[in-house]
Amino acid sequence: MVYRGSFRVNTMGFADIKNVTAEVAGIVSDSRLSGGVATVFVAGSTAGLTTIEYEPGAVSDLKAAIERIAPEEIHYNHDARWGDGNGFSHVRAALIGPSLSVPFQDSNLSLGTWQQIVLCDFDNKGRTRNVTVQVMGV
Amino acid sequence: MVYRGSFRVNTMGFADIKNVTAEVAGIVSDSRLSGGVATVFVAGSTAGLTTIEYEPGAVSDLKAAIERIAPEEIHYNHDARWGDGNGFSHVRAALIGPSLSVPFQDSNLSLGTWQQIVLCDFDNKGRTRNVTVQVMGV
Amino acid sequence: MVYRGSFRVNTMGFADIKNVTAEVAGIVSDSRLSGGVATVFVAGSTAGLTTIEYEPGAVSDLKAAIERIAPEEIHYNHDARWGDGNGFSHVRAALIGPSLSVPFQDSNLSLGTWQQIVLCDFDNKGRTRNVTVQVMGV
Repeated sequence: MVYRGSFRVNTMGFADIKNVTAEVAGIVSDSRLSGGVATVFVAGSTAGLTTIEYEPGAVSDLKAAIERIAPEEIHYNHDARWGDGNGFSHVRAALIGPSLSVPFQDSNLSLGTWQQIVLCDFDNKGRTRNVTVQVMGV
Repeated sequence: MVYRGSFRVNTMGFADIKNVTAEVAGIVSDSRLSGGVATVFVAGSTAGLTTIEYEPGAVSDLKAAIERIAPEEIHYNHDARWGDGNGFSHVRAALIGPSLSVPFQDSNLSLGTWQQIVLCDFDNKGRTRNVTVQVMGV
Repeated sequence: MVYRGSFRVNTMGFADIKNVTAEVAGIVSDSRLSGGVATVFVAGSTAGLTTIEYEPGAVSDLKAAIERIAPEEIHYNHDARWGDGNGFSHVRAALIGPSLSVPFQDSNLSLGTWQQIVLCDFDNKGRTRNVTVQVMGV
């Protein structure tokens, strides 16, 4: 059985990190499937998905690490060619990756107590992001 | 068809990297499914999953790279707020990610010869980790 | 329903980044499935998969970020033990990860307009890579 849901998230860009656990859990519940895998995917080349303990300290620490890996202020060839100024966004998104696969059982996501699913919007402006959740199982 | 298995791993924390390939392959075998995908997932916000050639040199090189990206000794806002001293663990886990999806055929994981599935425990103490393997296929 | 396809890609190594979106989309089309998930996986411990806007600027920016994270010229214990000189390749591959899960609907991958699936070959020589696409759905 396959069930597809999706939801939209408004972000401020610049590594805005949003907790989307409730939205994903809601789609798993809507699917009426008991056990399987929820594949979460964000369309777009300047956003990514991962998990973290969603509290402001850890979230800001993740932003700081991403800034060390792909600083906003260095030269990016993407910007030199296209002039849209978001070369750092593309690099960050490619490193984090756009997909996450989360098992569920008894219709509950198999997350840890302090582990939340987060959308990371790395673009250099606010965006409305579309996140797809493909639920497969029985 | 869906088959769910899980296993526990004792770690020493501090980027302890454990080879869990045999455990994942055993659950795929237990499923009696021939072809499909094994979704491997670690619950918890201070651990991750990836693949590497599991030999001590490459494993220590990965630890060194992770230390460059999210050093243990710098300031983390998570620690300032919660005092549990594992801000670096949260950042590392979010960067590596908690899930891995591995195809299998004829009940064999489609890994390379020198490619092993590894659990990376980034916490600042030893932990017993629970890893879920959701097997789907025919 | 499960459908398995695979394809080969010739690379030059040294973070050669190849657009494989058409190959993955072709296998989804071959599967004749309408909706589900395509799990893309590269066998081998010196390659990875992610998505990016596939234009030369962003691709070179990603290469530069990977060089900052795991520089080619520093010491790697893997090289000291095995002498094959690709310690940096193993670290880079473990950080990017070997798997990607992409939903599809109406037989179309749920990618953004400027988002392409890329194989990153981090080895220190040209390789012929085998990429597996496991398609599951209805």
